[in-house]
Amino acid sequence: MNKKKFAIIGVAGFVATRHLNAIKETNNHIIAALDPKDSVGILDKYSYDIRFFTEFERFDRYLDKIKRKGKGINYLSICSPNYLHDSHIRYALRMGINAICEKPLVINAKNLDSLIALEKETGTKVYTILQLRLHPSLITIKEKYKNTKNTHEIELTYITPRGNWYDTSWKGDISKSGGITSNIGIHFFDMLIWIFGKVKHYEVHYTDNKKISGYLKLETANVKWFLSTDKNDLPTDNYKPYRNINIDGTNVEFSTGFTDLHTKSYEHILKGEGFGIKDASDSINLVHNIRNTKVIKPKKEHIHPLQIKKINTLKWNTTNTNRHSLTKM
Amino acid sequence: MNKKKFAIIGVAGFVATRHLNAIKETNNHIIAALDPKDSVGILDKYSYDIRFFTEFERFDRYLDKIKRKGKGINYLSICSPNYLHDSHIRYALRMGINAICEKPLVINAKNLDSLIALEKETGTKVYTILQLRLHPSLITIKEKYKNTKNTHEIELTYITPRGNWYDTSWKGDISKSGGITSNIGIHFFDMLIWIFGKVKHYEVHYTDNKKISGYLKLETANVKWFLSTDKNDLPTDNYKPYRNINIDGTNVEFSTGFTDLHTKSYEHILKGEGFGIKDASDSINLVHNIRNTKVIKPKKEHIHPLQIKKINTLKWNTTNTNRHSLTKM
Amino acid sequence: MNKKKFAIIGVAGFVATRHLNAIKETNNHIIAALDPKDSVGILDKYSYDIRFFTEFERFDRYLDKIKRKGKGINYLSICSPNYLHDSHIRYALRMGINAICEKPLVINAKNLDSLIALEKETGTKVYTILQLRLHPSLITIKEKYKNTKNTHEIELTYITPRGNWYDTSWKGDISKSGGITSNIGIHFFDMLIWIFGKVKHYEVHYTDNKKISGYLKLETANVKWFLSTDKNDLPTDNYKPYRNINIDGTNVEFSTGFTDLHTKSYEHILKGEGFGIKDASDSINLVHNIRNTKVIKPKKEHIHPLQIKKINTLKWNTTNTNRHSLTKM
Amino acid sequence: MNKKKFAIIGVAGFVATRHLNAIKETNNHIIAALDPKDSVGILDKYSYDIRFFTEFERFDRYLDKIKRKGKGINYLSICSPNYLHDSHIRYALRMGINAICEKPLVINAKNLDSLIALEKETGTKVYTILQLRLHPSLITIKEKYKNTKNTHEIELTYITPRGNWYDTSWKGDISKSGGITSNIGIHFFDMLIWIFGKVKHYEVHYTDNKKISGYLKLETANVKWFLSTDKNDLPTDNYKPYRNINIDGTNVEFSTGFTDLHTKSYEHILKGEGFGIKDASDSINLVHNIRNTKVIKPKKEHIHPLQIKKINTLKWNTTNTNRHSLTKM
Repeated sequence: MNKKKFAIIGVAGFVATRHLNAIKETNNHIIAALDPKDSVGILDKYSYDIRFFTEFERFDRYLDKIKRKGKGINYLSICSPNYLHDSHIRYALRMGINAICEKPLVINAKNLDSLIALEKETGTKVYTILQLRLHPSLITIKEKYKNTKNTHEIELTYITPRGNWYDTSWKGDISKSGGITSNIGIHFFDMLIWIFGKVKHYEVHYTDNKKISGYLKLETANVKWFLSTDKNDLPTDNYKPYRNINIDGTNVEFSTGFTDLHTKSYEHILKGEGFGIKDASDSINLVHNIRNTKVIKPKKEHIHPLQIKKINTLKWNTTNTNRHSLTKM
Repeated sequence: MNKKKFAIIGVAGFVATRHLNAIKETNNHIIAALDPKDSVGILDKYSYDIRFFTEFERFDRYLDKIKRKGKGINYLSICSPNYLHDSHIRYALRMGINAICEKPLVINAKNLDSLIALEKETGTKVYTILQLRLHPSLITIKEKYKNTKNTHEIELTYITPRGNWYDTSWKGDISKSGGITSNIGIHFFDMLIWIFGKVKHYEVHYTDNKKISGYLKLETANVKWFLSTDKNDLPTDNYKPYRNINIDGTNVEFSTGFTDLHTKSYEHILKGEGFGIKDASDSINLVHNIRNTKVIKPKKEHIHPLQIKKINTLKWNTTNTNRHSLTKM
Repeated sequence: MNKKKFAIIGVAGFVATRHLNAIKETNNHIIAALDPKDSVGILDKYSYDIRFFTEFERFDRYLDKIKRKGKGINYLSICSPNYLHDSHIRYALRMGINAICEKPLVINAKNLDSLIALEKETGTKVYTILQLRLHPSLITIKEKYKNTKNTHEIELTYITPRGNWYDTSWKGDISKSGGITSNIGIHFFDMLIWIFGKVKHYEVHYTDNKKISGYLKLETANVKWFLSTDKNDLPTDNYKPYRNINIDGTNVEFSTGFTDLHTKSYEHILKGEGFGIKDASDSINLVHNIRNTKVIKPKKEHIHPLQIKKINTLKWNTTNTNRHSLTKM
Repeated sequence: MNKKKFAIIGVAGFVATRHLNAIKETNNHIIAALDPKDSVGILDKYSYDIRFFTEFERFDRYLDKIKRKGKGINYLSICSPNYLHDSHIRYALRMGINAICEKPLVINAKNLDSLIALEKETGTKVYTILQLRLHPSLITIKEKYKNTKNTHEIELTYITPRGNWYDTSWKGDISKSGGITSNIGIHFFDMLIWIFGKVKHYEVHYTDNKKISGYLKLETANVKWFLSTDKNDLPTDNYKPYRNINIDGTNVEFSTGFTDLHTKSYEHILKGEGFGIKDASDSINLVHNIRNTKVIKPKKEHIHPLQIKKINTLKWNTTNTNRHSLTKM
């Protein structure tokens, strides 16, 4: 089989490694990389022959040149900051190249329209990484609840502490990352929708720049959710990320089995079976809506247990969207 | 003992890890970090309480503020691109803080003068990392040749392949890094001078943007040296760095024992025994001179064996400094 | 008289021209300039011998080098974005140089403390530009109200339209500029305090990213104020800035006579009579407080006439600081 | 007539004004602008309704969005640094938009091929600004020599002094600007080729980072040329640019009549008569060749008079390309 040729946008961030590994492990080539940050010695682990650029325009010149020589790339892997994803995807499609983009495809759901239109115009395809759908434990769960008629009661808890750098970086700028729900929550929302069906109702109970919690009704599940980057929310002192999904009172174990999910994602994509814009749109819409809705004073029974502990210190204020909505008393 | 408080400039590059580890392993605190590049999740491995800045001015505001509260830092660790070292050191000294700076302290030797003057004016101290001087094998060698009266014949070979990113990054810009001799050669030159004495004579036989070779006379050694980032110079195909020092026909093994040399360096510094400007100046002067001398047509017996193989493809041109001095025929 | 030597930080922005002119017209020298933006051909109007830098560290190297040769600069003129002012002033003072800084000296009033302390430690001086205090018409007014016992009723109106670029630039980022009051209002507040005395009371009636209005009590005046960058607030269609101060029913004309106020400011400074930190602190404190206070529902008679027109479309919300405080219905 | 909609890349540099004026004077609209530098208050002179972006990706998002609403732009004006021109042109063409690009279209002649191919693929058009061809005095000259059979002897002299900022900016980086011939010489070469025919022979006699001189044979002219940004080359002390073309011993006056040539250029383009890739290619090829040829020791009678004065201080060195080719003795 012919090796496929890849270029990658975004190499200095941590997620790039997973894409570089996936390209290597699926036995393909990385031939060019772009990042405005030049601390990318990591590339040497993959090949000494990767052309590296710190400016988009020079990267474009190179990709265009090899394309005109009949040696163009087949895929563009996109690991740039979230708010740049859609533009980098458009670049790939206009070049006639398929795009493989980290989550979330876009921050604002309406920007998916342009991508759908460009796919049609150019005959190319946008793939995204929804790796939890390839996780063995979660596939088992999906199977288990496939024909469920009941409504299941779920608690989703994800606490992954981050230092001050996170707030200073693009990840802490809601206009660039979409905030915590886009950055760390979207995979879980996608997974829940994938297993338990369409979103019927959503509400947000609390939000600040380090955490957000709320309630969600899907076709066959009610979900109390709590997402945090605040180390003080961790149940223990060991500062390891805490990830838990409790379904009808039972904890689901899925803290292992993550290591090669990007490689599995790439295998699917290379077989033409990768997840596309339509697969991603439900969770992107949900996260977009959560970002823009007002915080409400919820029914007590809908509040996530970790949130309810702090309830006496909170006063709900319903006039604003969730970013500015709660004042500590 | 009181923990010392550190701030660090330059976190996204690979060498920062060694400094962060050294600060941790000597049981001290990192409280602030600066890097224009915000991919610094690595900080979370050390503490969730490090203030992070992408702009020098905001970093300065914070350091000044805690200083005025009597909670200022004790040391500033400097891991910025080479050409910024001296300015970042001056910043520390003017703030009344000691600086710990990665090699090379400066690119242009004359910039040491300003640092020496500032040390006196401010009563602070500049430390540099000369970790090879703390390497057990090399300490043994120094001991062995301490009272030597002979002139030893040495071949120094260091080949550490780098991809295209290296040329695109600041490391590949001679005005920012000082070139290969400053980036990867200076430790070896420092070590040789430390063991075999002052520089009596130097010459450069070949240079391009990937390699440089030449000849050096020290008080008790003649050195044929060859430094390269070109994978094609490697003796084998495994693409691992090749490091060899041959003294009077015998190879000296020192490829292990590197892991904790930064920590040892920090221990020395914290005891007030660290290496300072005077210790660093001989190798900085040598590298500075090598950068600015003309390539010469050498005596055959002075040419490094790896260079001599290629000698038929070379034509020496003696009118220019080494950067532009050789034309492949 | 010996010519003084100046360096300048910030050359690409519009206010730099006034400083460059003032340096020239007071018959002094500009010898170095720093701006990360390299579109600075304007320098050629002043001299072909100005050293220009795009990086702070290289600028510092040059200033330090000439200082050690006894040819250092006498003044550093600072025209950088507002949030960088205090750090650039600290740089000057630590170098033993006087600073001349555009308004506002700082965004957050508490950052003045560090500058006061550094002035003492280093024996240098910080000057700021409060050019309205040198405006002939306003000097006349100050004289007129010098011994007033009455409380005067003032309306301050300043509308200076700006396009979308303003919001995208650092000027539109409240953390970098301090917002409209810092950017365009501070001169007027300084002037009013200078003429009518200390701040007794302040309130904010409306604020969004394009305008802000409120009420102010000084020792001998009550002030309804309205500041806007929204072209729709202009009284006419000609899109020229509208500047008006009405005292006890009479409009004060001061739209001319601005041209050489920076030069006058420099003349004062060079004679040792320039305005310093203490002169600037009242208006900086006021603007700081206005930025952080909550919007209130005011008494109707305290509302500025241009604001009152729109009053039916406003609903006051008193829970937040002024940045997010009003919802259009 | 319907107004055309324009976007512009590059607003902070001096040449943008000419394009903005031309768009306004041809009675068209600027609706969006991109520049990484945010000191662009100049836009307010044209309209308060121009969307401004500092990031390419957000600019692209906006242009794509309005295009999908049927309100897309008709032309993209490109005033970015020279080395970015071809990529920005490709962006326009892939979007289905015509590009109007400042000179030089490209630095390396081979990059024209990609643009020619893209014009065909997309049915769009690339226009460039060759404004001297629209200068009345030069049109007269072209007419005069139209049917000439003789070979005319020409001296071209252009000295336009620049301070140190020029070297520090992208204009002083030969990989970004193409050097003096691309930056300030290309218009003159284009004009000479346009009047006197194809290039038969070229040679370079001297070059450094401030000046370059040489000799050129066209179909009906021999040209001694001298281009400089060094104030010391000016014939007088008034530091005004010196521009002179001497044909067969007679000076041609064309120092006036420049003011509205960009507007004339836009009028031509809007009528579909603008200059395209083919028109620009001869001068781009010449400048590219001059940049890469070796400096030669010329015949004395081919040397430009301003160069010949200094001849005793020069020693020719023929082994290198012109950038590094002369050593002052």
